Amino acid sequence: MDTVTRGQLGVCYFPEHWDAADWPSDAEEMRALGIDFVRIGEFSWGVTEPDPGTINLDWLQDILDLLHSHDIKVVLCTPTATPPKWLVDTMPDMLATGRDGRQRGFGSRRHYSFAHMGYRRECARITRIIAAQCGQHPAVIGWQTDNEYGCHDTTLSYSPVDLAGFRDWLAQRYQSVERLNRSWGNVFWSMQYRHFDEVELPNQTVTEANPAHWLDFYRFTSQMVAEFNKLQVDILRELSPGRDIIHNFMGRILDFDHFTLGAQLDISSWDSYPLGFLDQQRDLFDTPHRLHFARSGDPDFQAFHHDLYRATSGGRWWIMEQQPGPVNWAPNNIAPRDGMISLWALEAFAHGAEAVSYFRWRQLPFAQEQMHAGLLRPDRSHAEGFAEASAVAALIREVEWPTTTKGDVAIVFDYESAWAWNIQPQGETFDYFSLVFDIYRGLRQLGLSVDFLSPSMAASRMEDYAMCLVPGTFTCDEAMANALATTSSRVILGPRTASKTGDFAIPDTLAPLLPDAISPARISHVESLAAGLRVEMRDRQGYLHRWREFATPVGDAAVLASTIDGRPALLRRGQLDYLCGWPDSQYLDQMLRDACHAAGIATINMPDGVRLRRAGNKGFVVNYSDKIVDLMALAGNISVFHGSEKLLPSGFAIIAFDAPA
Amino acid sequence: MDTVTRGQLGVCYFPEHWDAADWPSDAEEMRALGIDFVRIGEFSWGVTEPDPGTINLDWLQDILDLLHSHDIKVVLCTPTATPPKWLVDTMPDMLATGRDGRQRGFGSRRHYSFAHMGYRRECARITRIIAAQCGQHPAVIGWQTDNEYGCHDTTLSYSPVDLAGFRDWLAQRYQSVERLNRSWGNVFWSMQYRHFDEVELPNQTVTEANPAHWLDFYRFTSQMVAEFNKLQVDILRELSPGRDIIHNFMGRILDFDHFTLGAQLDISSWDSYPLGFLDQQRDLFDTPHRLHFARSGDPDFQAFHHDLYRATSGGRWWIMEQQPGPVNWAPNNIAPRDGMISLWALEAFAHGAEAVSYFRWRQLPFAQEQMHAGLLRPDRSHAEGFAEASAVAALIREVEWPTTTKGDVAIVFDYESAWAWNIQPQGETFDYFSLVFDIYRGLRQLGLSVDFLSPSMAASRMEDYAMCLVPGTFTCDEAMANALATTSSRVILGPRTASKTGDFAIPDTLAPLLPDAISPARISHVESLAAGLRVEMRDRQGYLHRWREFATPVGDAAVLASTIDGRPALLRRGQLDYLCGWPDSQYLDQMLRDACHAAGIATINMPDGVRLRRAGNKGFVVNYSDKIVDLMALAGNISVFHGSEKLLPSGFAIIAFDAPA
Amino acid sequence: MDTVTRGQLGVCYFPEHWDAADWPSDAEEMRALGIDFVRIGEFSWGVTEPDPGTINLDWLQDILDLLHSHDIKVVLCTPTATPPKWLVDTMPDMLATGRDGRQRGFGSRRHYSFAHMGYRRECARITRIIAAQCGQHPAVIGWQTDNEYGCHDTTLSYSPVDLAGFRDWLAQRYQSVERLNRSWGNVFWSMQYRHFDEVELPNQTVTEANPAHWLDFYRFTSQMVAEFNKLQVDILRELSPGRDIIHNFMGRILDFDHFTLGAQLDISSWDSYPLGFLDQQRDLFDTPHRLHFARSGDPDFQAFHHDLYRATSGGRWWIMEQQPGPVNWAPNNIAPRDGMISLWALEAFAHGAEAVSYFRWRQLPFAQEQMHAGLLRPDRSHAEGFAEASAVAALIREVEWPTTTKGDVAIVFDYESAWAWNIQPQGETFDYFSLVFDIYRGLRQLGLSVDFLSPSMAASRMEDYAMCLVPGTFTCDEAMANALATTSSRVILGPRTASKTGDFAIPDTLAPLLPDAISPARISHVESLAAGLRVEMRDRQGYLHRWREFATPVGDAAVLASTIDGRPALLRRGQLDYLCGWPDSQYLDQMLRDACHAAGIATINMPDGVRLRRAGNKGFVVNYSDKIVDLMALAGNISVFHGSEKLLPSGFAIIAFDAPA
Repeated sequence: MDTVTRGQLGVCYFPEHWDAADWPSDAEEMRALGIDFVRIGEFSWGVTEPDPGTINLDWLQDILDLLHSHDIKVVLCTPTATPPKWLVDTMPDMLATGRDGRQRGFGSRRHYSFAHMGYRRECARITRIIAAQCGQHPAVIGWQTDNEYGCHDTTLSYSPVDLAGFRDWLAQRYQSVERLNRSWGNVFWSMQYRHFDEVELPNQTVTEANPAHWLDFYRFTSQMVAEFNKLQVDILRELSPGRDIIHNFMGRILDFDHFTLGAQLDISSWDSYPLGFLDQQRDLFDTPHRLHFARSGDPDFQAFHHDLYRATSGGRWWIMEQQPGPVNWAPNNIAPRDGMISLWALEAFAHGAEAVSYFRWRQLPFAQEQMHAGLLRPDRSHAEGFAEASAVAALIREVEWPTTTKGDVAIVFDYESAWAWNIQPQGETFDYFSLVFDIYRGLRQLGLSVDFLSPSMAASRMEDYAMCLVPGTFTCDEAMANALATTSSRVILGPRTASKTGDFAIPDTLAPLLPDAISPARISHVESLAAGLRVEMRDRQGYLHRWREFATPVGDAAVLASTIDGRPALLRRGQLDYLCGWPDSQYLDQMLRDACHAAGIATINMPDGVRLRRAGNKGFVVNYSDKIVDLMALAGNISVFHGSEKLLPSGFAIIAFDAPA
Repeated sequence: MDTVTRGQLGVCYFPEHWDAADWPSDAEEMRALGIDFVRIGEFSWGVTEPDPGTINLDWLQDILDLLHSHDIKVVLCTPTATPPKWLVDTMPDMLATGRDGRQRGFGSRRHYSFAHMGYRRECARITRIIAAQCGQHPAVIGWQTDNEYGCHDTTLSYSPVDLAGFRDWLAQRYQSVERLNRSWGNVFWSMQYRHFDEVELPNQTVTEANPAHWLDFYRFTSQMVAEFNKLQVDILRELSPGRDIIHNFMGRILDFDHFTLGAQLDISSWDSYPLGFLDQQRDLFDTPHRLHFARSGDPDFQAFHHDLYRATSGGRWWIMEQQPGPVNWAPNNIAPRDGMISLWALEAFAHGAEAVSYFRWRQLPFAQEQMHAGLLRPDRSHAEGFAEASAVAALIREVEWPTTTKGDVAIVFDYESAWAWNIQPQGETFDYFSLVFDIYRGLRQLGLSVDFLSPSMAASRMEDYAMCLVPGTFTCDEAMANALATTSSRVILGPRTASKTGDFAIPDTLAPLLPDAISPARISHVESLAAGLRVEMRDRQGYLHRWREFATPVGDAAVLASTIDGRPALLRRGQLDYLCGWPDSQYLDQMLRDACHAAGIATINMPDGVRLRRAGNKGFVVNYSDKIVDLMALAGNISVFHGSEKLLPSGFAIIAFDAPA
Repeated sequence: MDTVTRGQLGVCYFPEHWDAADWPSDAEEMRALGIDFVRIGEFSWGVTEPDPGTINLDWLQDILDLLHSHDIKVVLCTPTATPPKWLVDTMPDMLATGRDGRQRGFGSRRHYSFAHMGYRRECARITRIIAAQCGQHPAVIGWQTDNEYGCHDTTLSYSPVDLAGFRDWLAQRYQSVERLNRSWGNVFWSMQYRHFDEVELPNQTVTEANPAHWLDFYRFTSQMVAEFNKLQVDILRELSPGRDIIHNFMGRILDFDHFTLGAQLDISSWDSYPLGFLDQQRDLFDTPHRLHFARSGDPDFQAFHHDLYRATSGGRWWIMEQQPGPVNWAPNNIAPRDGMISLWALEAFAHGAEAVSYFRWRQLPFAQEQMHAGLLRPDRSHAEGFAEASAVAALIREVEWPTTTKGDVAIVFDYESAWAWNIQPQGETFDYFSLVFDIYRGLRQLGLSVDFLSPSMAASRMEDYAMCLVPGTFTCDEAMANALATTSSRVILGPRTASKTGDFAIPDTLAPLLPDAISPARISHVESLAAGLRVEMRDRQGYLHRWREFATPVGDAAVLASTIDGRPALLRRGQLDYLCGWPDSQYLDQMLRDACHAAGIATINMPDGVRLRRAGNKGFVVNYSDKIVDLMALAGNISVFHGSEKLLPSGFAIIAFDAPA
């Protein structure tokens, strides 16, 4: 097989945690394993600046030289996720404050507010120092800014510093307080402000605060994160030119706009912990599901984020931290099934990752993450991940991996919508991420490859896809409306799509806020459905649950499906469908099949836990299930050119279709 | 059919939320619908006084004139539930403090402590201003004070201001701290105080505080609420003579004494949200029950409050806010079944309401309640409630409604008992409201009409009822004891009735604290039963659960029923029965049937979800179930003179009995 | 039957709560019942020192004289669990602060921090005053220090005072901050400190704090408790010589080291509330189990603590408070089944208690514990416990009770391990107490009598037992390692045994940290298993759950049992077994049977709820079940010499075995 492109294999490495005498054998063993690069420097501020102004970067210089001599590349990190104690003590108000009004303390990590200007200055200073000294080292190929923005609920902060920043931001946004009052609708409940300095934070009110107030607080906060990151990016571009700038995002963190931040970067990366996430995301995964996939992870959660983060920086993406074995931070920390540590990495490459980096090289025997596996155990013996990483290293040299190939269908993903529906779920079972995830899973069970688009990307690129889903996107701007008016893509809107103005109000003409000439539906009112409450479909299997909208057709819209009470469930007008509720898996499957059929998209019935990512006429198949799967039964036109026709549990295969899909 | 009296139909209206250009069409459309009155001015402080001392009531004058010209009457509101930001900033310590010790912030509503004298002065000032200017307007027929006292857990507050008030109140109540120490029993755990200024609030103790301490804090707080309301009532009576003074209570708010407050009013009203309450009150309604009645509401919860609030102001009562469609504040917000928006209003009239007012006229597209339905949608189209309200408007002109007709049986309801058993449940499944509600439901399932009495009302009016139930009333004063000694009513006491002194102590002679000459039982000890633990009845169906008392008969008391272990479950001495535990629905039904039989009260087996309210020989029947009900099967002596013999789901009928019951 | 030794029967008495006129009849009635001693003075600071410096001990002198005249002995208490309000007001920073950072208030009990030096001085002062005045009274036979250390989560406190104490303690422990940084591994996440005064408390961090930080905070706190108690012990020994010094521990309080504190005492006592604990410990007892034993209590929970507290002061132990009927503080408070109030006391004597004291003499009608039963009711009538206590009084005069007889097998119990695994459970289902309790129950179901040993006791006394279990003991010191190297006992280690260094790190050579020459296993890695996840055994019934370790044999270790995936589940090398996970009850039973067989220990299959404690060839049998049990079916060599061969529910019997076991 010809090798045209190949993924890079990395590992996260913390030389400062170990005796320097161990470094040479680390480098040698990494090289032998097939490691292309290491990520280092994360959390190292305390070593680099043990006392205010006393800089020690000799250790970093030494390890860079050593790695360079072993032909191992390096991604350096800014150490700003863990400011040292002496720094916190110089400005204690840099500590973030929780929604409960209590200031968070020193002693773990991420103990800062993004809005604190003093801390930003300190971050710029240390970034400049490190970049100036090491940024042009030949081993350095890239930079990671900070670490896992938003992890541990650290995006929104409610301190006096945040309040001051929020007031300034509002003053700039609205210019006059009268405009703020009008935009938020503060006449309701006598919430009018006379000056921007009267505005409070929304977190300690007696009952719910104004949703417009909350939404602006999310917008402000998201901008603070972007500004915080930008400050470092600018310095790195200046002092370490030609290197890729990266941030390592987390799974299902929604509190700031990853598209905005991703646009500052060259590469989006994320930290993929399949078993940790499966056990942790209990609203998403019920107990039988968690037990069923306990040792392999959910078959869609990783791919969802692969596809999402492929979008956030415009195509280039990595796994910066890949689970290497049992971890320490989930409610339960289970050992992966044999083969999964490989499979997760291979799946990432199948979705176009340029690089996958295991976390971490050697399990650290002390401190908070001592129970987190590494590729080496504390005694340097090979952990179970070592051999699996070796297998990956071998395979990435054998196989041609896709990097940017387009998927079959697109889903619009929008962080502001996540904020909006978190602020106003209107029903305890409504959750934006879950809605999108349900649809994503439904598509993947039909063998489809999915791309994500931000709303603004969708406005210009919808045409690239035969089908585009826009569930729950809370506003629709002019660009999107124009795109919808002229699209030749089959577009499925709803539920809750375009149901608000940008000021978090119901449109004067009711939802969806779309031009009359194209809107397929008018929603008179909605209802949220308690767990267990169903609205059965008429003449179809399945039901709506969680959410239902009462719609009337607009223009020549046709009713494609109805609920048992005779209300429209799915409307179609031209290229636009409108889905009037949250479908269960059965009706969702039927609806997606029908839509694919209408759009000329071929589907494949994927067995339980088996998933496919296509790249041209090539297909990458992963088996999360515990059953052997006959690949030849998937479709009639398949041949297998990597792996076995009988795909084992944890198995990975590459298949070819006779003709490109 | 002759029309002798008729209910009034109203709607809650917020003209200040809308362009004044919309007002005339609002008034016309209201008139066309059959609206008799609107409630306005609630939450309008920010419009009325945008800056300190700058009063603007032109808007109110204008709308009053406009409505008057359309022959629509007005209930005005004091705007004190939402003090403006500038006012809060002049005295930030007016903000209430939660049980967790954290001060609550500005940004929603009800952000004040009832005990703050500065805020009381401000409330008096604004009330005086509005009443002076508009109180004699010919359109104004009544006043609502503030809004929903106690909603969002805003009755008890734990700030330094509350502490200071509590100490003063204790000093007046006890005069000497020695007396306080004795009354509370502070010798226990060395809790003696040397001065009133040493007393603390009971909310932050290491383990439970003294129940007598808590009870006095509830009493103090309840008095603060009463004083707060009285201040407004007195001003309104002075400046707006001849108008009805009303407050709109909420469902299942128990933290202050509604009888005390109701006595200050001309009319008690309440805000009835059947679907919101059903979904919210999860300790009361289990999941199957919530799903079964998801679109109609619990068949007893509304009637319970109708009957309760009919008592609190001596007979006159309203619905001030009636659910008009899906709301926004319950965990899930479901659309009512067709017909229920009508039915709820009709049921209120059947229970003697003078007026029912829908909340709200037009759905507001912005701010916190944007997802709360109105009779109009934001675009002025008619919401589903509009037609149903029209139907009500028509029917109230056709039918003769009861206003004060007495029920078949009485239940004593006592707020102090709710506090007491909240303070000392003694078992996690014991709840005063649930106990009374179980009994209320049991009576209604037998077709009985129920009146509520406060303990002091019961002392004088018990005789008006053939049967009177006194469950869980924690003290028995002398007036009640005298009434019990001479009653000819069948009285069912227990469990927990008269089990404490007013100082929250077990009586020296054990419970119940009744004269030896009449007490049917002595309770040696009690037990609380974990969920699932049952004490089966002997020779009867059913069991006791949640609570059980170990009783011995006193005097010539007879054991009417026993538990499987041979202990008395029901004792009878003369007119007094004593129930030694919390019966399940099966034994409760049997016990109530037997007691009714003994008291000569006829019962009817009501089908699931169907309820009856009688007025003389007339009966008003509502169908909360999803089944068609044959009214003629209810009893042998029935004729139907409004509605169909086959009562549909959401159906309302008026029947006649051959002879008055 | 010859009476060689006999237990003492006591009762907790609070004369200061009652009119002195009642005292003589109290004393007479106690004497008639057979009460040997009373415990008095607990919580009496407010009576003894009503104003600062005003001492009133006349009441105590009077009651001592009265009791002495009735030949009733007295255990006096220091009143330090309830400092009066005036004292708290002189130094409000003595109040403890919760983990949430909120200071706890006055108004209940245990409102102090152990680390507050000012409060310690006050405790010394009042102890000295009481001991000086009453310590040599002839009625006084002992002292109880304070009351129930640690109850209501009052061990760990997070105030500025605690922080200051912790910093001092760290400075003494580590001498240099560099050593602290190294020991904790503070290089991780830049947590290095430059001075001891930079160290913070671990409770308010963004995500988890360093486990070594937490462990030292537990160690510091445990030392504070020990110092606090020692101060009183020293004064009492000086001023009241010859009296036993006692503390009354609680059930399942693990936050301080009871062995350290117990070593200061002559006698360990504990407060045994079988029904309260059953209902409260919901992680330990599932709902079916709680309902099954609702009226008798768990059949092992009491015995576990009897056996544990027999160890903490070297053999001498009491029940200081014995549940006398329904209590008030559990989630539900159920009446005991007839006979259990006796049985609980008899079981304690069977386990070697010198004394059992019921709590309390007379139910107090007021304040927090008014719903807590006494032997007398508030009206002086006899409560249900009175007759049962009388039966106990009679029986203790008839029967020869064991005091120090050794059990069949030993379990090592270690408080530091409880802290360690609470800090780092690594899985939500891992709990140290539960692990030890499961094993204890497994042994008791085999008819075995268990002794507990601290790790240091085990190092010297392991040889006394044919079998010794060491589950989850987090470190292994040199003395223990030496003992294991030479033992002739069958020792079962694991899971998690010796898995950390004393600095809370994974050993360099991986777990267990045992000499290579003896270690049966090396643990490469572990996994925690979510509820419902099982690792089935191979060729055996049952499974591992909650926790599993991946082991390889060391030296000539043999694999005795494996899991379905072929991994070792039980390894044996010489006398040392290593158990590689948390067994379910079925495999635990099998494993223990096999080990007993190997160790030559005879077992008996105990019926559900029936338990046996042996003393030589005598056996004490208790029946917690609701079935009649045929004692003769237990084993072939039994004769019954107290009680019936058919043991009723709540029954107690003494049996003889033909030959000593």
